Amino acid sequence: MESVVLSPDLLLELSITILRALGLSGEEARVVADTLVEADLQGVGTHGVVRLAAYADRVAAGGLNPRAEMRVVHESATCALLDAGNGFGQLAAYLAMQMAAQKAAESGVGIISVRHSNHFGRAGYYSEWIARQDMIGIAMSNASPRLAPWGGKKPMLGNNPWSIAVPTDQEPIVLDMANSMVAAGKIRQAAQRGEPIPAGWALDADGRPTTDPVRALQGVLLPFGSYKGYGITLMVGILTGVLSGGGWDAQVVPVDAAGWPQQESHLVAAIRLRDFIQVENFKEQVAAVIRQIKGCPPAESSPGVFIPGEIEHARRVRALREGVPVALPTYRMLGDLARRLGVPLPGGWPS
Amino acid sequence: MESVVLSPDLLLELSITILRALGLSGEEARVVADTLVEADLQGVGTHGVVRLAAYADRVAAGGLNPRAEMRVVHESATCALLDAGNGFGQLAAYLAMQMAAQKAAESGVGIISVRHSNHFGRAGYYSEWIARQDMIGIAMSNASPRLAPWGGKKPMLGNNPWSIAVPTDQEPIVLDMANSMVAAGKIRQAAQRGEPIPAGWALDADGRPTTDPVRALQGVLLPFGSYKGYGITLMVGILTGVLSGGGWDAQVVPVDAAGWPQQESHLVAAIRLRDFIQVENFKEQVAAVIRQIKGCPPAESSPGVFIPGEIEHARRVRALREGVPVALPTYRMLGDLARRLGVPLPGGWPS
Repeated sequence: MESVVLSPDLLLELSITILRALGLSGEEARVVADTLVEADLQGVGTHGVVRLAAYADRVAAGGLNPRAEMRVVHESATCALLDAGNGFGQLAAYLAMQMAAQKAAESGVGIISVRHSNHFGRAGYYSEWIARQDMIGIAMSNASPRLAPWGGKKPMLGNNPWSIAVPTDQEPIVLDMANSMVAAGKIRQAAQRGEPIPAGWALDADGRPTTDPVRALQGVLLPFGSYKGYGITLMVGILTGVLSGGGWDAQVVPVDAAGWPQQESHLVAAIRLRDFIQVENFKEQVAAVIRQIKGCPPAESSPGVFIPGEIEHARRVRALREGVPVALPTYRMLGDLARRLGVPLPGGWPS
Repeated sequence: MESVVLSPDLLLELSITILRALGLSGEEARVVADTLVEADLQGVGTHGVVRLAAYADRVAAGGLNPRAEMRVVHESATCALLDAGNGFGQLAAYLAMQMAAQKAAESGVGIISVRHSNHFGRAGYYSEWIARQDMIGIAMSNASPRLAPWGGKKPMLGNNPWSIAVPTDQEPIVLDMANSMVAAGKIRQAAQRGEPIPAGWALDADGRPTTDPVRALQGVLLPFGSYKGYGITLMVGILTGVLSGGGWDAQVVPVDAAGWPQQESHLVAAIRLRDFIQVENFKEQVAAVIRQIKGCPPAESSPGVFIPGEIEHARRVRALREGVPVALPTYRMLGDLARRLGVPLPGGWPS
């Protein structure tokens, strides 16, 4: 797809301007914008600034409250339940990650459950931030139904994203995934191109395996690792929506139903290292693991051996140097959105 | 395979007798025997009494210390590091699960890291026990190298088992898995039968995909969900062996190297519910999730929709009623082992 290369600073500036126009404070707009631009920097464009269009629609339709007040419902030395008040998921998860790290710094562990929230972006953003505080970071969210239980044909389970990150002496290892074989976006791309999809990605609405992307989009995504991925997405749904009291996956509203609160729930956790091992020792040992893995002889036709998060980090380094490739429709959407909201494009924005 | 149906009581009695003869106390023998017989009851024979042969070999060769003293290295209100002193993994994990639940009951969360341990059996045993205390239970272990990093061909990563369990108003949901497409045992069975294995299960020693089970056994197992399963097994290895200071997967010794301590590490965690939601409310909500999932219309050719742990529980109910099917070679091994250790077979043991 054609793309425009933009400087990360310009992208951040425009995102902040747009989010302020949607009703966020300067500080809040900076938090949400950073989560989005970071996703674009890491090459995870599906979770980047492209989302601003849906967020603006949701705010306009009343499904997302930019002036929500978050509330701590319960709190202990180790745990807290946060009610996001139907605000931006990023703001709730950002607070949750700070609270989790604070509690872990004082009590060894911090676990924050969040309810009444919305789409929170990339799970890895929050786990990685915690890992950079020299802790083990965990973040997960439920999502609206996309997958059937293994053996079934009706979408009942979200493609619930989850992430675990650990510190090293260089960049953290960041494991960050959802639980379908592929994201729905890949199937949508195949449909646009009129190309078939591989078997094993999806079932059609009648519960039959299909390689037709159009029929797949009317059916359900298949989980990765068959019943294992199903079990994982089910458990993430319980650890978020049931634990928080916010409602299970089946109650979560799709992001494009703009007028309704999504009712997403999240879980963010931090674990301090020093009750188990000295921080420097842990980081050195993880670095040794990375060196050994990177030294593994490659399999036949292998593009190489990578550490979770390594490719994303390499993309980030390159994008900081050379700019962020933004798909042409996303670039146009940003300009249109700014005009619609009556805010100026930043100086230097390419026309 | 031919099997002998044995009463669970007989199987437990003989297992306890054998473990006592190996040097465990009566109480210790009861704990280890229970973990093994429970695995057989649930139809997970690979982790059942069949393991007694390898444990006996390890004790005889000095690789496993039946009189190990476990030691708490560090301890806080939420966390502890346990040194298993090269004893039975089951004893260390059993203590860890009790400590985790105790700390969670007092502080909301308990996380116990274990080092210098050995094979601990089924991860789900410990997580399920915690779930039966009305908490979220987590258990995991590293293991000796069986998988290559995704894209590589050298076994460097263990097929590290992990489990999460949550309570309901009936049987807990127990997610329990290792991270290869299939267990090595399945490939060994295919080799014995001279049958090919499906593509995607393993690579040969040269890092090429293979359907030859003999070549597969000389190579590496492939992870489930390709790079996702690789990332999960890597992370479980870090959360066990690196966090405990006991050593990463590559340092873990295979169970059949009988003269050497395995150097396995485990992690067991418990999370109290009431800081987030009332226990009864959580259990009712999970039960509602189960009802909805069980009501999902089946996909084409589907054997039905199951909850993680449901099939194992059904097998357990049946085995308690009708007896445990034990493979003929395992039945014979138990008799031989008892004779070798000079202990009597229990009254009623079929001859």
